[in-house]
Amino acid sequence: MRLDTDANILIVGLGVIGGGYAAALTEAGYRVSCITSEQRDIEYALERKMIEYGTTELEEELIQSADLIIFALYPTVFIDWIEKNQHLFRPGTIITDVTGVKTSVVYKVQDMLRDDVEFISAHPMAGREQSGVEFSDPSVFRGANYIVTPTEKNSSEAIAVCRELGHVLGFARITELSVEEHDRMIAFLSQLTHCIAVTLMTCNETPNLEKYTGDSFRDLTRIAKINDKMWSELFLLNKDALLCEMDSFLSEFSEFRNMLASDDAEGMRAKMRASTKRRSLFDKPKR
Amino acid sequence: MRLDTDANILIVGLGVIGGGYAAALTEAGYRVSCITSEQRDIEYALERKMIEYGTTELEEELIQSADLIIFALYPTVFIDWIEKNQHLFRPGTIITDVTGVKTSVVYKVQDMLRDDVEFISAHPMAGREQSGVEFSDPSVFRGANYIVTPTEKNSSEAIAVCRELGHVLGFARITELSVEEHDRMIAFLSQLTHCIAVTLMTCNETPNLEKYTGDSFRDLTRIAKINDKMWSELFLLNKDALLCEMDSFLSEFSEFRNMLASDDAEGMRAKMRASTKRRSLFDKPKR
Repeated sequence: MRLDTDANILIVGLGVIGGGYAAALTEAGYRVSCITSEQRDIEYALERKMIEYGTTELEEELIQSADLIIFALYPTVFIDWIEKNQHLFRPGTIITDVTGVKTSVVYKVQDMLRDDVEFISAHPMAGREQSGVEFSDPSVFRGANYIVTPTEKNSSEAIAVCRELGHVLGFARITELSVEEHDRMIAFLSQLTHCIAVTLMTCNETPNLEKYTGDSFRDLTRIAKINDKMWSELFLLNKDALLCEMDSFLSEFSEFRNMLASDDAEGMRAKMRASTKRRSLFDKPKR
Repeated sequence: MRLDTDANILIVGLGVIGGGYAAALTEAGYRVSCITSEQRDIEYALERKMIEYGTTELEEELIQSADLIIFALYPTVFIDWIEKNQHLFRPGTIITDVTGVKTSVVYKVQDMLRDDVEFISAHPMAGREQSGVEFSDPSVFRGANYIVTPTEKNSSEAIAVCRELGHVLGFARITELSVEEHDRMIAFLSQLTHCIAVTLMTCNETPNLEKYTGDSFRDLTRIAKINDKMWSELFLLNKDALLCEMDSFLSEFSEFRNMLASDDAEGMRAKMRASTKRRSLFDKPKR
């Protein structure tokens, strides 16, 4: 299949990401349906014409009519859903996901999945601090990264469909990584930073600090408002990679601390110069 | 004295902060002169009408004519300047500064200063990643905090002048802290965050990470571009307070790490909920 606009797309899970996908795909001309747990989320999306149809039931006809099914669920909920309901898929269906960790999810799903259905995994790297369909906003995908994580079980056709989905959603850069590369990368760039932000908020409870805060502290803790259920799950599902990054950070931070303790100005300055130089690589590309 | 617009203001050190002060004070109607080390910085400021007069020399007449002198120098340079040149002050002059650490600077300057001159210290909490007068921008003061740090040697008159200066510069909130309170606060809110940002940039040198970065990592490392000379000096001058905050952070981060290692989802979630709740206090006030 190609992702022509006559394709039927079913989104399972209408939260902040599922809702953003629905809005972007509807706008691009696709027929989008959804299955989600709360009727009020369906009503919200119908009122705003983000979806054509929605249900809280596992309607067999709806699932069978889908050419592409996008799972926008918590990782463990996604795995459970496949286990219990994969008999409902039509042969030839392509399924994808939005899960933020891969190694512990992708192999598990691919191993149990029927041979006549293909799961190609992807990670849209565009988060929100808030959860829920009412915070969904397809504009967050523009300028962001969309990472496809194929395994040897994936066909080039499904990989192409998944990449096309990233383009249609408006992502600026579509890349491919192995599930292991993805998880090491995400442990450092995303999960470690969330651990640091949370720690900054809980390690000093002096009253009135907020009266004196500047933008640096605000920037480092923006992501300290965190969905505890989802992120604890993501951390545990990527435990080894995240522990490895946390330990590297701890070791480097302790080294810097010891330079300060021993009045090693030149040591600190060398770290700062390396930091300044490397940070330039991470500047947002001018558009 | 009151800070009437017929007051002569002399700025010593025309960098990113001194330049911002010069522009804001000139705009507010004051006669602003400066003494700084580079002739090209004076020319830059004269061309843009940020100052009325500037010199690279210690002109006695200029220093004697100043009602208020603002030192916008690196802390150690400021202390040296006072030691060598305080004989040039006119009796009754009020001097202030912009130094980012206080305990190790304020007592030293006040102890050696002539009895007929008063030093009232303040910290404008509005930084820039870049240094140099060409990056100065008085608009960064709007919405920011201006902290006056009086000691028992200060008169209520000088404190009032210093607070008025903060208002004239456009700061949103003028507060007072003891030098010790200031340094504990700044160790946590500013210095610790810079240590973390630098560490994040130096603890993982995997190539191509920048291709996958999202806004979280960018936000946590914005301040990783850092003036190594100034910040190493600020860290060393606030060493005890900063070490104390670094150790609290290390201990709390290790606790979170160990929760992950032992699959303690509920422990991590409790930290995340506390973090989410406390972070709301630090939201930027709506204006």
